[in-house]
Amino acid sequence: MAFLFYPVRINSNGVYWWRMLKVAIVGATGYTGLELARLLIKHPEIQLVAATTRTYKDLPLSSVFPELTNETHVVCEELSIERISEISDLIFTALPHKTAMEVIPEFLENGKRVVDLSADFRFRNVSVYEKWYQRHTAPQIAKKAVYGLPEIYHEKIKRASLIANPGCYPTGAILALAPLLKSHMINTKGIVIDAKSGVSGAGRSPQIHTIYCEVNEGLKAYKVGEHRHTPEIEEHLSVLAEEEIRVAFIPHLVPISRGILSTIYAPLSNKVSTEELVDQYKKFYDGKRFIRIYPPGKLPNTLYVRGSNYCDIGLKVDPRTEGVIVISAIDNLTKGASGQAVQNMNLMYGFEEDAGLGYLPLSP
Amino acid sequence: MAFLFYPVRINSNGVYWWRMLKVAIVGATGYTGLELARLLIKHPEIQLVAATTRTYKDLPLSSVFPELTNETHVVCEELSIERISEISDLIFTALPHKTAMEVIPEFLENGKRVVDLSADFRFRNVSVYEKWYQRHTAPQIAKKAVYGLPEIYHEKIKRASLIANPGCYPTGAILALAPLLKSHMINTKGIVIDAKSGVSGAGRSPQIHTIYCEVNEGLKAYKVGEHRHTPEIEEHLSVLAEEEIRVAFIPHLVPISRGILSTIYAPLSNKVSTEELVDQYKKFYDGKRFIRIYPPGKLPNTLYVRGSNYCDIGLKVDPRTEGVIVISAIDNLTKGASGQAVQNMNLMYGFEEDAGLGYLPLSP
Amino acid sequence: MAFLFYPVRINSNGVYWWRMLKVAIVGATGYTGLELARLLIKHPEIQLVAATTRTYKDLPLSSVFPELTNETHVVCEELSIERISEISDLIFTALPHKTAMEVIPEFLENGKRVVDLSADFRFRNVSVYEKWYQRHTAPQIAKKAVYGLPEIYHEKIKRASLIANPGCYPTGAILALAPLLKSHMINTKGIVIDAKSGVSGAGRSPQIHTIYCEVNEGLKAYKVGEHRHTPEIEEHLSVLAEEEIRVAFIPHLVPISRGILSTIYAPLSNKVSTEELVDQYKKFYDGKRFIRIYPPGKLPNTLYVRGSNYCDIGLKVDPRTEGVIVISAIDNLTKGASGQAVQNMNLMYGFEEDAGLGYLPLSP
Amino acid sequence: MAFLFYPVRINSNGVYWWRMLKVAIVGATGYTGLELARLLIKHPEIQLVAATTRTYKDLPLSSVFPELTNETHVVCEELSIERISEISDLIFTALPHKTAMEVIPEFLENGKRVVDLSADFRFRNVSVYEKWYQRHTAPQIAKKAVYGLPEIYHEKIKRASLIANPGCYPTGAILALAPLLKSHMINTKGIVIDAKSGVSGAGRSPQIHTIYCEVNEGLKAYKVGEHRHTPEIEEHLSVLAEEEIRVAFIPHLVPISRGILSTIYAPLSNKVSTEELVDQYKKFYDGKRFIRIYPPGKLPNTLYVRGSNYCDIGLKVDPRTEGVIVISAIDNLTKGASGQAVQNMNLMYGFEEDAGLGYLPLSP
Repeated sequence: MAFLFYPVRINSNGVYWWRMLKVAIVGATGYTGLELARLLIKHPEIQLVAATTRTYKDLPLSSVFPELTNETHVVCEELSIERISEISDLIFTALPHKTAMEVIPEFLENGKRVVDLSADFRFRNVSVYEKWYQRHTAPQIAKKAVYGLPEIYHEKIKRASLIANPGCYPTGAILALAPLLKSHMINTKGIVIDAKSGVSGAGRSPQIHTIYCEVNEGLKAYKVGEHRHTPEIEEHLSVLAEEEIRVAFIPHLVPISRGILSTIYAPLSNKVSTEELVDQYKKFYDGKRFIRIYPPGKLPNTLYVRGSNYCDIGLKVDPRTEGVIVISAIDNLTKGASGQAVQNMNLMYGFEEDAGLGYLPLSP
Repeated sequence: MAFLFYPVRINSNGVYWWRMLKVAIVGATGYTGLELARLLIKHPEIQLVAATTRTYKDLPLSSVFPELTNETHVVCEELSIERISEISDLIFTALPHKTAMEVIPEFLENGKRVVDLSADFRFRNVSVYEKWYQRHTAPQIAKKAVYGLPEIYHEKIKRASLIANPGCYPTGAILALAPLLKSHMINTKGIVIDAKSGVSGAGRSPQIHTIYCEVNEGLKAYKVGEHRHTPEIEEHLSVLAEEEIRVAFIPHLVPISRGILSTIYAPLSNKVSTEELVDQYKKFYDGKRFIRIYPPGKLPNTLYVRGSNYCDIGLKVDPRTEGVIVISAIDNLTKGASGQAVQNMNLMYGFEEDAGLGYLPLSP
Repeated sequence: MAFLFYPVRINSNGVYWWRMLKVAIVGATGYTGLELARLLIKHPEIQLVAATTRTYKDLPLSSVFPELTNETHVVCEELSIERISEISDLIFTALPHKTAMEVIPEFLENGKRVVDLSADFRFRNVSVYEKWYQRHTAPQIAKKAVYGLPEIYHEKIKRASLIANPGCYPTGAILALAPLLKSHMINTKGIVIDAKSGVSGAGRSPQIHTIYCEVNEGLKAYKVGEHRHTPEIEEHLSVLAEEEIRVAFIPHLVPISRGILSTIYAPLSNKVSTEELVDQYKKFYDGKRFIRIYPPGKLPNTLYVRGSNYCDIGLKVDPRTEGVIVISAIDNLTKGASGQAVQNMNLMYGFEEDAGLGYLPLSP
Repeated sequence: MAFLFYPVRINSNGVYWWRMLKVAIVGATGYTGLELARLLIKHPEIQLVAATTRTYKDLPLSSVFPELTNETHVVCEELSIERISEISDLIFTALPHKTAMEVIPEFLENGKRVVDLSADFRFRNVSVYEKWYQRHTAPQIAKKAVYGLPEIYHEKIKRASLIANPGCYPTGAILALAPLLKSHMINTKGIVIDAKSGVSGAGRSPQIHTIYCEVNEGLKAYKVGEHRHTPEIEEHLSVLAEEEIRVAFIPHLVPISRGILSTIYAPLSNKVSTEELVDQYKKFYDGKRFIRIYPPGKLPNTLYVRGSNYCDIGLKVDPRTEGVIVISAIDNLTKGASGQAVQNMNLMYGFEEDAGLGYLPLSP
């Protein structure tokens, strides 16, 4: 590997590094891998040095994804932890659950920092993981991982070696509920999260329930009361509320490619107006680059965030039922996965929080 | 009141004793009008004799809707109440709210029976209508109208002169909740109805928010806490529960053409299993031709009812939150509008309940 | 198997049968299988007695396809040629190429009639089949098969034991070009067939290129100059033109579930107006139940035939280039596959040509 | 003519010698206007100073388009030629045909440079415009306009005051055919351009034929032999071929939001292989930043260019018919409209050709 001296780069904190940060994607040929590639190839502070895959070894990444033609010289390779550790500073692991925890400990031992997009390190309490997923094979590392939701855990992320990048549904749900729970505005019993996801959330491996004709013109709920994102949502809502929270979480599949709309109903503990709540949200998220609070009367739409790292939030008090409806929209591949992973990297290395993430939504 | 002799069929070649029922569509060139045409043209017991419209006067209906080419000789005409009364026995009014109540009283005076697809006669209590819609100009008639939800109001429908055909959302929501409320299995506080509708529900007149590029790849909630179907849902749930019910009703627009999925969360008043509830639903709807209760573990999908008059219902008890999630799927143009209107006609005239409605869902 | 005496049925040709025709679907769990089930379950002259599948053995067909809930008692079974021969009169084989020719000869030997939806028996000249597909294992039977395009080969179909049901693309292309070639109105060199298909044409087995996110919002051509429907189209165009025809055939994949639009350009050999050609088409297809010729100025749309057995045809003379553009629209699963198969059955057994096929298009 | 000093950048924090280029969008609230906003807001060399509209006067642009929330302070204003001339250096006119030629002359008189996205100045020969559109009210200016297809008219664009930005279909068709015509590899008779467009090409004003349910699940050709892009395509193909060219141009509407796939058939004048032609294309477009030539065996897909300024081209020789099929894919709003307009601006002002245009395609 040629070692190049890059020109001195200046970031807002002063002179930073003698060369660009070297970054690898492990598990590059799913949709979160593709989205990472889209974001990292254009990122001004880093260099994408490797992309690993089991299926497309030795093929140029731009041959697997013709959309990347002329944009990258990276060639897919099989995962060698040793080689990847040698050539990269930071590793994004976009592997299936279980596989992730098999490789990450070694990367950490090799002194690398890791942003993991799987669920393997998202639970501080390993027993919760084991109840909803499987036996955990690296529990001691799980304790050190930081949950990578930058709007909530900003400071911890900066210093982390291992980021557990949040699930797509939890991102939309936690960001929508955080201000209400933090300020104890709602009853913690009776929260209903009805979430609707685009199909890219189901991944890129062919399965009968994701083929076009099974999804197109259909609407369905799935894994009702059983979805593995439930405990992840509850853990962080409980931290915010400082009490144990249970939610009814009902995920749906909708015929769009990208986007999650989370429609959340919660009983209000006090009388409050939509305007007052909107103000509270604005204060809570003041200065947060990727949160947009809608004015009263306007509500989010997944189309308005597509391809961007935004989480849009709108809400409405319903005096008839003494509840509040909060709605958040994210792009599940960007803020719900790879964009948030890049945002975490930016914090970890002192880059601008939106470095390589300044995309306007692509609409229509 | 209309004839008594309908329709003693002799054979399958269309020779009838007396004659076929003569039917007109008033307001034929919206989507509910087109759906009525699709169903009525093939209906074995009736003859479609007229289709009125403001926009396409003197054009063959098959020229407005090329899908009907070779299938009907009906020519669009401007509405003349006198002429329509003369040539038809039964009139389907598929007009906008307000316009409907301007013409229906005259049809009734002329001794015609009417199935009205607007909201104008859906409320027994005119003051509710006036609160959510506008001043009512035919309140005395409103009292005589029968709410045309055949699975609930079967007997009254048979004898009615004026059917107020239910709204699409209320159909899906009421059918999903009826067994629970009737048997007092749930708390009547805390019901959340998160409903997702295809775009045909928004009608056929061009508006910025229904053009393709505004809808495609988007997901949004709209009219949260303000949708006019809310009081309609609540009226009939209250009848079933024998107490006043308020629900949080949150409608969404989803990029499919046909279909409503209603996802309903309700707190259970007692411990009960999914299996027990499924059994209760099966009993409640025993013999109902157009209700299909899914076995435990299976949930509805709008694609599985498309183009049919079915309402599919599935449910799941969530012991973690002590609630139940009930999900119903209908085709908003069929069971949610025109199919149900035809079903009402069938009951009114003693035809088989599924005459002209025996379509299997079109999937994929 | 219980042998039932069904009531005497009367069709338009007089008393017909002591029992309903018994029909089996071999290969029932793909999309053409599902479409066959949709049509056959409601067919007034037949009884669906079996559905075979490799994957879903012993499951009710309505469990594999919840859209069929309450509509059929058929349970999936593994294929036993002996058993199927015993209980059925007519067999629809909806198997992959190659598998079809392995089982059909035995059915024929057992005295059964077969409508085959694969390509195995579509070529009179086995060497063409072998060039584009693979070695043929039943060449002597291939000679006896009748190409099941009823609008062209009506009489032969009536008497056939084995129908080779046409491919979806050939159906749209041949029907669009037949009148022009028969009357020698166009040059036989320079014909370009640009065909666009919905995704159900690619089948129901999960593959990377048919998953939702790979198809949605995309448009692409595929197998340009290599698609196996090319020789099938050319064989029958050559028969019609009485000379050997070669066409440029360019198939495309489009994000819709059902439908093929074939846009065909051909150089005119003589001056002629759009009106004159439309008249010729009307004459050529006079009395053909499932062909609709559009008036000058109107063009087909796949949406206008969806779910129906229609082939809609429109055309336009382009005097600037001295050519004609002919456009046909079919539903690839209905007229392009299973509907046409049922139409063939109807001819074979003297049923009304549209028995069980009288569906209006489902739109929107 | 505008300033000479643009834009000598000093550093990346936005401090400039002199000042950034000031840019206005006239007609900002259609889809090309929105796409211009998306690109210009992030453009490193310019400042968006105004957006005019008839409908949304005094509303923040981010209120008309919530996707722009937090991204721009521009407020919609009614068009005042005087004011816009005063505050801007360059004006993008995204107005309907006819309206454009009413305002552009004045901008030019005021010394402004204009990139016009309408058809009003696309024809050197005003009589062609008048035949296909309407009377031209500024014929003397039409002569000075430069057709803004940078890959072909690069040098003229640099010096132009008025750019006639190409139509979406012509962009895809001309770029696909240029190398073949320039090198006289094909017969100039018999060219068939079958083009498929996404719905955003039809604009943002509500019309019956662009509402969701009319488009979704449909495929249709429209304006066959009559589309106004025909003469525009022919004019530039004729320049390239140095002889008069006529093409059969057949546009289609397809249910996607963005993208045009142009499938072009042309008879070859000589034997040549796919490989040789691909090489020729690569040479012809050598150094062109936004053209990607696919290797033999790969073909473009609109999904692979979405949101980017790329024109992807693939081709295949069909020896059976002695023709070639060339396929190009563009995003109709980017390379087919607003992206190309920005590319033209970049050339006019000596910016990097891809300044503000370096987006990777957004996929899936």
